[in-house]
Amino acid sequence: MTAQTASAQTASTVDTTLAAATAAAPVMAAAAVADRVRWLRAAADAVDAGVEDLVAAALEETHLPEGRLRGEVARTSGQLRMFADALGTGALLEAVIDTADPEASPVPRPDLRRTLRPVGPVLVFAASNFPFAFSVAGGDTASALAAGSPVVVKAHPGHPRTSVLTHRRVADALEGAGAPSGSLGLLVGTEAGVEALRDHRVKAAGFTGSVPGGLALHEVAASRPDPIPFYGELGSINPVFVTTSAVKQRGSEIAQGFVGSFTLGVGQFCTKPGLLFLPTGHGLEEALRRAGEVGSATMLHPGIREGYSAGLARLRQAEDVEVLVDGAETADGVSPSLLRTRLSTFLEQPDALLEECFGPASVIVEYDDEEELVAAAGRLEGSLTATLHAQPEDHARLGDLVAVLTDRAGRLVWNGWPTGVAVTWAMHHGGPFPSTVGSLHTSVGVTAVRRFQRPVCYQDTPEELLPEELRDRNTLGIERRVDGRVTGDDVRSSR
Amino acid sequence: MTAQTASAQTASTVDTTLAAATAAAPVMAAAAVADRVRWLRAAADAVDAGVEDLVAAALEETHLPEGRLRGEVARTSGQLRMFADALGTGALLEAVIDTADPEASPVPRPDLRRTLRPVGPVLVFAASNFPFAFSVAGGDTASALAAGSPVVVKAHPGHPRTSVLTHRRVADALEGAGAPSGSLGLLVGTEAGVEALRDHRVKAAGFTGSVPGGLALHEVAASRPDPIPFYGELGSINPVFVTTSAVKQRGSEIAQGFVGSFTLGVGQFCTKPGLLFLPTGHGLEEALRRAGEVGSATMLHPGIREGYSAGLARLRQAEDVEVLVDGAETADGVSPSLLRTRLSTFLEQPDALLEECFGPASVIVEYDDEEELVAAAGRLEGSLTATLHAQPEDHARLGDLVAVLTDRAGRLVWNGWPTGVAVTWAMHHGGPFPSTVGSLHTSVGVTAVRRFQRPVCYQDTPEELLPEELRDRNTLGIERRVDGRVTGDDVRSSR
Repeated sequence: MTAQTASAQTASTVDTTLAAATAAAPVMAAAAVADRVRWLRAAADAVDAGVEDLVAAALEETHLPEGRLRGEVARTSGQLRMFADALGTGALLEAVIDTADPEASPVPRPDLRRTLRPVGPVLVFAASNFPFAFSVAGGDTASALAAGSPVVVKAHPGHPRTSVLTHRRVADALEGAGAPSGSLGLLVGTEAGVEALRDHRVKAAGFTGSVPGGLALHEVAASRPDPIPFYGELGSINPVFVTTSAVKQRGSEIAQGFVGSFTLGVGQFCTKPGLLFLPTGHGLEEALRRAGEVGSATMLHPGIREGYSAGLARLRQAEDVEVLVDGAETADGVSPSLLRTRLSTFLEQPDALLEECFGPASVIVEYDDEEELVAAAGRLEGSLTATLHAQPEDHARLGDLVAVLTDRAGRLVWNGWPTGVAVTWAMHHGGPFPSTVGSLHTSVGVTAVRRFQRPVCYQDTPEELLPEELRDRNTLGIERRVDGRVTGDDVRSSR
Repeated sequence: MTAQTASAQTASTVDTTLAAATAAAPVMAAAAVADRVRWLRAAADAVDAGVEDLVAAALEETHLPEGRLRGEVARTSGQLRMFADALGTGALLEAVIDTADPEASPVPRPDLRRTLRPVGPVLVFAASNFPFAFSVAGGDTASALAAGSPVVVKAHPGHPRTSVLTHRRVADALEGAGAPSGSLGLLVGTEAGVEALRDHRVKAAGFTGSVPGGLALHEVAASRPDPIPFYGELGSINPVFVTTSAVKQRGSEIAQGFVGSFTLGVGQFCTKPGLLFLPTGHGLEEALRRAGEVGSATMLHPGIREGYSAGLARLRQAEDVEVLVDGAETADGVSPSLLRTRLSTFLEQPDALLEECFGPASVIVEYDDEEELVAAAGRLEGSLTATLHAQPEDHARLGDLVAVLTDRAGRLVWNGWPTGVAVTWAMHHGGPFPSTVGSLHTSVGVTAVRRFQRPVCYQDTPEELLPEELRDRNTLGIERRVDGRVTGDDVRSSR
C-alpha cells in the first residue's frame, strides 16, 4: 500500500467514525438521565466480563504485571459505575432555577433555568501507561459518556490489541443497552488523531501524555477556525518536602515509602515523585540505596524507554549532581536510579532538575534550613501534586510553604505519597502548566465530567419543552439551586 | 516621543502593573472569605458614589443616553454585590469533602478535600459597548475579584476617561477596604494589552469584542510557552423564529418587540437579534417598517461605525436580499436598516447572512413551511441566544427545533427578546463558536466566577492548614458535598 493510499484510507476511516459520532450526539443529548446511567453500567459490566481477555492482551503488550492490570480493570469499571452513580444523583447537571420576578427593578426578570448539556463528540487521546484506566474505556471516555457526549478514542500504539478488544466489548455493550451506534468510536494512528482533532465535528478533546506531544495537539485544537477546549495532562515533577522533625521521627519509613513510590510501575506514573527535599545529614542513604534492590523491569514501549534514557542522562550530566543509586539499563529493562544534589545547586540551575523524567528515577535535594524550602518551592513549575512530610510541631511554621505549594500543584499530599490516585468526588488531578494545559478541570474523579458539558439557559420556556431536570416537578428527585438555595423540592412556578 | 520610547514606556508600565498584581495574588488568595466579600461591597459602593462623574464622562465618550448609562452603573454595582452575596454563601467554592475510608478496597482511601482557589492575576479586555458593566469594574473584573484573583484591565479606547475614573475610584475603594494594592490595575493601548497577555504572570484572560480581535488574542494566549485559558465573547447572530400561530395571535406585538430589540442602543448589543424567521405572508411589513421611524443616533466610536457600514453593505449586496427599511448613514449617525430575503436564499447562501453586523440592522427570512425551520436552524453557527415565538398549540411539534437551537445557542428565549440579560444564578451568556471561544463558561451571572478558579485537593492535610471552607467544623455555615451528599453539617473526621 502506498503512503497516499494509506492516507486516503485514514481520511475515510476518520470521516466514517466522526459521522457516526455526530449522528449519535443528538440522540445521546436527548436521552433520559436514567438511560445514560444504564449505558454506563452496561459498559462497566462489559469491562469486568472481559477481564481475562483484556488482561491477557495487555500483559503481552505493556509488560505491566498481572496484578496491576487486574486492579486497573477493576478501577476502570469502578470509574464507569462511579460516573453512573453521580449522574443518577443529578448533581452533574448543576441544575439552577431562578423563578420569574415580575417586580424586579428596573425591568421584570424572566424565569431562567440552567443546566449542563453535552458538548458533542469528544476526541480522547489514550495514554500508554494505563492501558485501561486512561485508555479506550478510561476516565476521559467515561466522563464524556457521563456528560452525554459520544466519544472517539485515538488508540495508543503501545497497546493496539488491548484497545481493539476493549473497544469491541464496550461499544457492543453500549449499543446493547440502547445507546446509539457511534457512541464509542476507535481510531488508529497519529495521522488519524490529528485529522480528527482538526475536524469541525469534534467539540472537545482530552489527552494524557508528554509535554511536547500535548503542546503540539493543543496548538492544533487552538488554531482551528473554530477553536475547541483541549484538556491535556502532560508532565509533572511531583516534589516531596520532608521536615527535619519528620526525618527524626520516621526517617526510614519515609525513605522506604519514597522508594516504593518512585519505583512503582517502573516509575511510569504521572504522579511519580521526581524530587525529594531532605535536610542535610538525614542519614537515610542506606535506606534510600535500597532502591538499588528493586530490580530491572521492562518499560511500556521503546519510545518511553528512549525518553527515559535521555532524561536520566540529562539529570546525571547536571552540575553537582551525585549518583546515589546507579540504575542499570540493559536490553531486558531498566532498574531504578537515584541522584543527589544540594539545595544551592537546585536554586542555581533549577531548569536542569525540573523537567519530568518519566521512569524510575528521582533526585534527592538536600537543604540546610527549612526556611529555604519556601524559596525552593517558588522555583517549581506547575505539578499535579506536591507532598509534605511533617510532624504536628511543624504545622505552625508551614503555612507559607503550603501556600506556595497549593499555588503550584493541584493536590497537596500530607504524610503520604502522590502515586495512587483515589477516584472520588473530591479528587483533583490537574495543576498549573506544564502538568496540565488548557484546563481548570480534573481528569480524575467525578468532576471530570464538567470538561465535556456546556451550560444552556432556558428563558420562560414551556414546561413540556424543558429537559427533565429543569421542570417544576422535581421528578428526578435531584438537588437543584432554586432562587439561590439548594433544594430537592418542586418549584412553584409563576409562569 | 519616538515610537521606541513609547514602546519602552509601555513595557515598563506593563511590568509595574503586573508586578503589583503578582504581589497582590497570594495576599488575596490567603484572605478570609468575609474579607473578600467586604472588598467587593466597597467596590460596589464606590461605583454608586461616583455615578455623577462616571455618567458625565461616559456621556461624552460613548454617545449613549444618560438613562441607559445610569442604569448600567446600577447594574455594575449590582453585579459586584451579587458576587459578594454568592461568595458569602460559600457556594462558589464548590467545597467537597470525602472522609477517609480505611476499609476501602484495594487500598485504604485517604481523606480528600477539594475547593476552588483563585487562578492568579487575570487580564480583562474591556468592551466598547458597555462602558461600565463590561468594562473596568464590569462582570469579568467582578467575577475575577470574587474568585480572589487580582485583575489588570486593558481599557477600551472608546471610553478612556471613564475607564480611568472608574479605575481610580474602585482601586482606592478596594485598598481602603483592606485589599492589597495591586488588586486592580489598568493598562492603556493595544500593545500593552498584548504584551500583558504574553506575560507569564497573567494566568487567565477575559475578552468581549469582535471575532477577529478575539481570535487574534486567543492565539496569543494559546501559543504562549505556558498556554492560559482565554474566555472571549465574540460575535453572535441571535436568530428569532416565529411560528405561524404566533403571527396570527400577536403578530403586530411581535413586530413591535423585534423592532425595539434590534434597534435598542443603536443595535450595539451582542444579543441583538440579527435574523427573524417569519412565515411567508405574515403581513407585518407595515409594523416592521416602523423601524424607519426610530431615528438616527451616533454609534459608540468611528471604528464600530465603519464596521457597521461594511457589514450592512455586505448584507445589502447579498443575492435576493430586498431592503425593507433603508436606514440612513449621515455624519451625525445611523438609523436602522431592515432587509428581507426568502428561506431558500438563506439555505443556499447562509454564509453571507450569518456574519454578525454589529449595529441597528437585521434580516427577515421568510419561510413557507415550519418544517423547514429545523433545517434552517441546522445551518446556524454558534450564538449567544436563540429565540422562539410560539403558541401553546405549537409546543408538541417544536421539540426538534428546540433540540437544534439548544445545540447552537447558550440561551433559549421563549416569547421574549434576547436583549436585556438578567444577572442571576441561572443566567448563561456564552455559546458555541463564534459566539464564544475557549469557554464552556459564562461571562454573565454568578457562575462566571468559575472561569477564574482552579481546583485544589488537600489529602490528609491537618485541620489548621486547611482553607477555612474545608475544615471539619463548618464555621462558614456553607453548603458542602460531604461523602457525596450536600450538607451544612460539620464533618466528623476520622483523622
